[in-house]
Amino acid sequence: MPVKNGKQYIERINKHLPDVRIAGEQVKGAISEHKAFKGLMTTQASMYDMQQDERWKATMSYSSPLTCDPVGLSFMQPKTKKELAARRKMMQTWAYTHHGFLGRAPDYMNTAIMAFSAAAGLLEEETPQYASNLRRYYEYCRENDITLSHVFIQPKAGRLSTFLKTFEEPVAARVMEKNKDGIVIRGAFLLDTQGATSDEILVFPAPFPSVSTEESPYTFAFAVPSNLPGVRFICRESFVGGESAYNYPLSSRFEEMDTLVIFDDALVPWDRVFICGNENLAFRLINESRFHTHASAQIMCKNIAKTEFLLGTIETMIEAAGLDSHDHMIEKVTEVILALETLKALQLAAEKGASPDRWGSMLPNRKPLLAANAYFPKIYPRMIEIIQLIGGSGLIMIPEEKDFDTDISGQLNRYLKGIDLDAKANVQLSRLAWELSVSAFGGRQSVYERFFFGNSTTVNNRLYNGYKGRETFKNRVRDFLS
Amino acid sequence: MPVKNGKQYIERINKHLPDVRIAGEQVKGAISEHKAFKGLMTTQASMYDMQQDERWKATMSYSSPLTCDPVGLSFMQPKTKKELAARRKMMQTWAYTHHGFLGRAPDYMNTAIMAFSAAAGLLEEETPQYASNLRRYYEYCRENDITLSHVFIQPKAGRLSTFLKTFEEPVAARVMEKNKDGIVIRGAFLLDTQGATSDEILVFPAPFPSVSTEESPYTFAFAVPSNLPGVRFICRESFVGGESAYNYPLSSRFEEMDTLVIFDDALVPWDRVFICGNENLAFRLINESRFHTHASAQIMCKNIAKTEFLLGTIETMIEAAGLDSHDHMIEKVTEVILALETLKALQLAAEKGASPDRWGSMLPNRKPLLAANAYFPKIYPRMIEIIQLIGGSGLIMIPEEKDFDTDISGQLNRYLKGIDLDAKANVQLSRLAWELSVSAFGGRQSVYERFFFGNSTTVNNRLYNGYKGRETFKNRVRDFLS
Amino acid sequence: MPVKNGKQYIERINKHLPDVRIAGEQVKGAISEHKAFKGLMTTQASMYDMQQDERWKATMSYSSPLTCDPVGLSFMQPKTKKELAARRKMMQTWAYTHHGFLGRAPDYMNTAIMAFSAAAGLLEEETPQYASNLRRYYEYCRENDITLSHVFIQPKAGRLSTFLKTFEEPVAARVMEKNKDGIVIRGAFLLDTQGATSDEILVFPAPFPSVSTEESPYTFAFAVPSNLPGVRFICRESFVGGESAYNYPLSSRFEEMDTLVIFDDALVPWDRVFICGNENLAFRLINESRFHTHASAQIMCKNIAKTEFLLGTIETMIEAAGLDSHDHMIEKVTEVILALETLKALQLAAEKGASPDRWGSMLPNRKPLLAANAYFPKIYPRMIEIIQLIGGSGLIMIPEEKDFDTDISGQLNRYLKGIDLDAKANVQLSRLAWELSVSAFGGRQSVYERFFFGNSTTVNNRLYNGYKGRETFKNRVRDFLS
Amino acid sequence: MPVKNGKQYIERINKHLPDVRIAGEQVKGAISEHKAFKGLMTTQASMYDMQQDERWKATMSYSSPLTCDPVGLSFMQPKTKKELAARRKMMQTWAYTHHGFLGRAPDYMNTAIMAFSAAAGLLEEETPQYASNLRRYYEYCRENDITLSHVFIQPKAGRLSTFLKTFEEPVAARVMEKNKDGIVIRGAFLLDTQGATSDEILVFPAPFPSVSTEESPYTFAFAVPSNLPGVRFICRESFVGGESAYNYPLSSRFEEMDTLVIFDDALVPWDRVFICGNENLAFRLINESRFHTHASAQIMCKNIAKTEFLLGTIETMIEAAGLDSHDHMIEKVTEVILALETLKALQLAAEKGASPDRWGSMLPNRKPLLAANAYFPKIYPRMIEIIQLIGGSGLIMIPEEKDFDTDISGQLNRYLKGIDLDAKANVQLSRLAWELSVSAFGGRQSVYERFFFGNSTTVNNRLYNGYKGRETFKNRVRDFLS
Repeated sequence: MPVKNGKQYIERINKHLPDVRIAGEQVKGAISEHKAFKGLMTTQASMYDMQQDERWKATMSYSSPLTCDPVGLSFMQPKTKKELAARRKMMQTWAYTHHGFLGRAPDYMNTAIMAFSAAAGLLEEETPQYASNLRRYYEYCRENDITLSHVFIQPKAGRLSTFLKTFEEPVAARVMEKNKDGIVIRGAFLLDTQGATSDEILVFPAPFPSVSTEESPYTFAFAVPSNLPGVRFICRESFVGGESAYNYPLSSRFEEMDTLVIFDDALVPWDRVFICGNENLAFRLINESRFHTHASAQIMCKNIAKTEFLLGTIETMIEAAGLDSHDHMIEKVTEVILALETLKALQLAAEKGASPDRWGSMLPNRKPLLAANAYFPKIYPRMIEIIQLIGGSGLIMIPEEKDFDTDISGQLNRYLKGIDLDAKANVQLSRLAWELSVSAFGGRQSVYERFFFGNSTTVNNRLYNGYKGRETFKNRVRDFLS
Repeated sequence: MPVKNGKQYIERINKHLPDVRIAGEQVKGAISEHKAFKGLMTTQASMYDMQQDERWKATMSYSSPLTCDPVGLSFMQPKTKKELAARRKMMQTWAYTHHGFLGRAPDYMNTAIMAFSAAAGLLEEETPQYASNLRRYYEYCRENDITLSHVFIQPKAGRLSTFLKTFEEPVAARVMEKNKDGIVIRGAFLLDTQGATSDEILVFPAPFPSVSTEESPYTFAFAVPSNLPGVRFICRESFVGGESAYNYPLSSRFEEMDTLVIFDDALVPWDRVFICGNENLAFRLINESRFHTHASAQIMCKNIAKTEFLLGTIETMIEAAGLDSHDHMIEKVTEVILALETLKALQLAAEKGASPDRWGSMLPNRKPLLAANAYFPKIYPRMIEIIQLIGGSGLIMIPEEKDFDTDISGQLNRYLKGIDLDAKANVQLSRLAWELSVSAFGGRQSVYERFFFGNSTTVNNRLYNGYKGRETFKNRVRDFLS
Repeated sequence: MPVKNGKQYIERINKHLPDVRIAGEQVKGAISEHKAFKGLMTTQASMYDMQQDERWKATMSYSSPLTCDPVGLSFMQPKTKKELAARRKMMQTWAYTHHGFLGRAPDYMNTAIMAFSAAAGLLEEETPQYASNLRRYYEYCRENDITLSHVFIQPKAGRLSTFLKTFEEPVAARVMEKNKDGIVIRGAFLLDTQGATSDEILVFPAPFPSVSTEESPYTFAFAVPSNLPGVRFICRESFVGGESAYNYPLSSRFEEMDTLVIFDDALVPWDRVFICGNENLAFRLINESRFHTHASAQIMCKNIAKTEFLLGTIETMIEAAGLDSHDHMIEKVTEVILALETLKALQLAAEKGASPDRWGSMLPNRKPLLAANAYFPKIYPRMIEIIQLIGGSGLIMIPEEKDFDTDISGQLNRYLKGIDLDAKANVQLSRLAWELSVSAFGGRQSVYERFFFGNSTTVNNRLYNGYKGRETFKNRVRDFLS
Repeated sequence: MPVKNGKQYIERINKHLPDVRIAGEQVKGAISEHKAFKGLMTTQASMYDMQQDERWKATMSYSSPLTCDPVGLSFMQPKTKKELAARRKMMQTWAYTHHGFLGRAPDYMNTAIMAFSAAAGLLEEETPQYASNLRRYYEYCRENDITLSHVFIQPKAGRLSTFLKTFEEPVAARVMEKNKDGIVIRGAFLLDTQGATSDEILVFPAPFPSVSTEESPYTFAFAVPSNLPGVRFICRESFVGGESAYNYPLSSRFEEMDTLVIFDDALVPWDRVFICGNENLAFRLINESRFHTHASAQIMCKNIAKTEFLLGTIETMIEAAGLDSHDHMIEKVTEVILALETLKALQLAAEKGASPDRWGSMLPNRKPLLAANAYFPKIYPRMIEIIQLIGGSGLIMIPEEKDFDTDISGQLNRYLKGIDLDAKANVQLSRLAWELSVSAFGGRQSVYERFFFGNSTTVNNRLYNGYKGRETFKNRVRDFLS
């Protein structure tokens, strides 16, 4: 199957429905009709539709090197700056359809699996079979337009910090058994966003430290269909406010469900195993594939679209309130403008500064991207705070769509209008601002952005350790002083 | 009726149910059974019950000067420091039952009407009748333990800033007519918290500026029963997550509904009119009654209870996560400790520095209270941010109570436990943290605290202008330089 | 004279010495030997020397369109992106020689006069003579490598805000008389940095508002030799710590003196007048010449050099203290790295996004530059704060160079060494950090950077008002909601 | 000798002058006449004079329990709340004479030695002689009004962090030898503020960790005369701007010199040894004497005086500039007001919440004091930043006193006046603001305040670990959830 459309996306997910639990119930029937998933799947279907739409086709796909079929462009390994630009254009196009509210739009994992596969050579020497498993899996995803989710982290109970407090046997995920058919996995993984609505899942946890210098049962990487026996997805509460796009402009469309994934002695077949036992190799694959660099280039498109959306919202709010010439409002708007210009400039710098890596990829310059990863978690909550500061009580006292259909609509029309906005449009704007800055949907977005690539210590260390060339500056100071 | 109990509170509200609209429907039947109001009314009923409970009676009530019946202590005009301390103790006791989540616990408006009434002398000269109306109304509230709500502000469409942009006739609230029975009011008022579940409403808006030097139709203050003909309450969306106290420990108990109140040519009888037409007097009554000082003393009790609750939550979180000896966690906890010590010290300073005012009240020192009003809106969002920073992904990936009743409970128990906390208790703690920092209930609390006594410019100016004695410091600098 | 060298720079300044007052004395003799000016002039001389140095010549100069002589490249009007890049390279080269500590390196005013002159067409219609005066003055500066200073602002006593408080006749600068020889100016101007050590001065104040719709006596722009009769420069206290480059690595080289300039009925000849009387034209020349854009491109080079110098200093400090693997130090370093990457990316974006303007200039994209102008005043004080936080008591308890020449040097060597740094080098590093973050030189740098392009309100409004294309984002939100 | 006066203070210091080095020279002759020390000693002399001045005598002294002579009240061990209040009044009185700019006014160490001595019982069991040494030393200081300095920390080269990087033998201070006359000490100590102008020095370093479980050579505490053979004081650069109180209102009076103290095999007689070898006891004496609590009560007086002085300065500045009704200025002033109210309230809370400790002292409540220690290092730099933000270019372009004595005074008078301030007074105000926020004196004050009681991690941990009673809040949350 070449690039799929929305219908195909939905049909495949519905057909292979995995074991999904939500609020004490197991999802039965078409998950695309379930109120917790419907809006998101509709949005994502419309994105897949763009792949077959004449207007977007050329932007969204490229010719498969294997079959010459059109396949998703975010699967493409970029070999030139031109290809890098094509990737950016593709990813930015999708980002403008979800305005940055999808942290796991399909191009995220498409990019990830491309990055890992390109670096499969790392695995070659030790276990050539794993290298070829990884490469074939990438091709399988690309040629079948697989919707993929992933898990990297484990619950706190499975981490070293807990072990060091309790000295109890850790519940960290591990290989229970290796047999002729594959490896048997037991453990839980956190925050599989869109896990319940994906075809497959990539499992690649940060290994729990092993005393063994040989083979660690805590180290592995693999991918399996989401409906593999022994795999279960437990959802958090749904933050879809309701179906009305007037009342819930964001959550009715963009609520990505997060799940806890449990592997209960699930059997992973050998041809889907990429790493097993070698802790050092696991760390190297993450680092040397430059997964974070490639993924950051995708996320940059998302973050720019989101910042532009917030800027547009904020400017619309202050105009509707008649505050667009107040210095303290201008100060707040310019904070957002500064954030946007910064992100756009860092994106440009990453692309202009790209250079080929040893895997044959044209790798964007890491420095501006890793810097952006440290920047966005600081500025996103501040932009949301700005919405609260501008919105004030207007973020609390908001009627709903249905109120306009009753005998009180005249009163609402009279009292709730804005400058150049009738009451219904003004209230709708408030509902958008409310979803962004007050609702559970908005709250989850804030937490998600804060921790997107890890906590601040992790993100800072990644930037610090990846910052090549700093000797220049120290030498300049040394020369100056001598 | 002396101090009422919870049952009496609920019965009276249910009996006199005003015109309340929510999500396009009018509330019918017992409002105390409506899911949007039930939890709050139950909480508030339990608070009223304390008034008749032997354990709390002495703390909660005092002997009416009129009838010698026990009446609510928060109605008491404090004449000595001892009475001030008694008021604080009473208010702190209630605050510890709602942990600071009720912005409009009954003692708030009890205090307000006491403050206004004590200053009724201001109205004496011009319109003695208004002065006696106000005094009698206070007595009525006190003797009948009236649950009172209030409105001070108008929708943006009714404000000067809008008029200056549009030059259209403002929709500001106004007196349409004065007749022998009373005054006829048309207009809308914002953010009547608990308006739908109160006996009466006090209306005292900041007047829209009038060109007339004589009598302004935009200036008035009065109180009426909430079910007065022509009065309607329009609710925002309910933020009650559900009835489960496990899933929604806060919103199932403390969700105070906010309403937009509309007066559609409602007739206010003359004996309920306190101000009509005199703009200057309206401003003076607000200022010279020291309403903000008295109300701030009540709010201080709330804010201390809330900060203690947050501190307890945060410390429990870091212990459950095994992070209580990490420097960066200790740094965050000490921020909260500093906030708590600051609030408690400002409370003490206000009480120790109290002095009699011209209305015969023992007035707490305004300076520390007005300073606290500038402080809390800064520190509350920061404390919530700290919860997000500590909670991380644990604030997102949370199952619900029902999940523990299914076949997956074993897995949850295994993977979601904390240090010294089983999974169910650990998840419950996460749900509390989620309600505080991610949910719509928590989001509304943040906005509410940011704007509790007005926006930052208003609050800063109130402190600046109320800061007597600053000449000392300027003189000290002048002397130093000379 | 084509590009001058350092000797020529010094000789001309010494020869034409203006009326300069410092600490109650008038400067007599060679100003280049005066301790307050010597270090700066030596530094600047070395920069001018580069213009004739074979190693730098090609970078620093270009062929005069008038004479084909090599003239300073920062005078060049950029007409292509290549020329823009050449300008950047030239300016960056000088910036690396003063590490960003000169706010008024010669290329700043070279750029300014180029920008104003390129827009002389604005003046054409009303007063062709002024237009040609401006163009000829630019050529004069370029061909004679004039060292130029400027003043834009007036003392507070001459501003509108003072007038509105006092209603006394303002002391704003004004044209006292127009006669056949020129215009007679009386007034004072603030903060003429390097005014005492420049050949000429450009005077272009923000006009005091005039009631007249015709010709305002408060509006003018002109340039004159610094030693024009009736002109006087009053210096602030010198912040040169001393001559020792060990003790005062920065102030011994980079202390740019600021002056108050007084025009006491000085006669400005007609051929040096660019604007006289037309308030509107004055504002337009500032705005439409895109002075701020061109100047910002120069300042960006300075700010990048400075940030790199701070980063090098900070990293050297934490290494010498053995703290380079501590998370809280890494956090601080990454803040500076983020600042540097942001500035570099904004610089790139401005240059890549350049487009021709109506004056024939290839104008850098304003958005990233105006954003950088809002950004640097926030981040510079923070970087200095980081130095304080890292340095701690090591910034206070620092001996001097001479202490190492006495009998106590053994003790100093023993106790004050750093990791991989002997005591003398370690103390020198501390002295650098001290000059940056504690000394009066460093304090003045912080204030200077905070207000470089005006206070934050001015800078924010300039960005806000210059931010074209924002409708896109509002429209996107509107479409999303409809 | 009972309480001394200024003359006695100066004479004794001059007579016993220790080995003091500054800028490569040894101080000879009367140190009170040396330009680096003169201003400070004059200020401090005036403070000592107050002890014998009829107007202040009763406030400043109390009757010695030993001799009934009047002795300094800051030496008094407080046994009642009344005595605590008397101490506060005494310390506040001195603080208002130096406006908080002296970090080591005499009452600081008077308080310290009182606290240590009161807890001498700790030493009793192990080495009764040390306990009695300490008590007798306290009496000696009190009865002779000894001006005492102290050192607690060592240069970085002597710390564990350096050792862990280099594995070289640490240069940490140590006991080289114990003989019949005493202990021989070698090592260096940092930041002995006023060390060069004190009678004696208390040495009590945080011990370098010892492997020995028995007796550590790195652990000791003692006090000796500053002119003990083998002891040397090395000064940093003096930050006295000059003698003119007009030009340098602060540094001409309050420049406390900091010194590096070197013990070069100095012999400490046995009767001056308080601790030797017992690491655990050293830590306990610091903690259980509640040194930090007592010292913090003294520092609180300083910080309040300083904050009031800054508030007075800032308000004078905005009035002179005509900006006192601008919202953004009011916002900044209210920040300072909030800081002042907070400090005053915390002071009150500490005193009102005092309780007797096991040493018989009435101990102020630690919580508000330790909280204040975490608060002031955050708010002080912010207040200084506010001065920079308000002052702007007016902090840079400031003439000097002598300029007003020349022919340009007329021009200065015309152009530099403020609202209701003539030019000379306005410039003087600017010089004060400059000393606070730009000069090296001001820079050193900022660093000093940031690290007064240690770096932020140390201060936060001290608050966190000293915060008794926090179980209440965790239990409240637990009860709420159960």
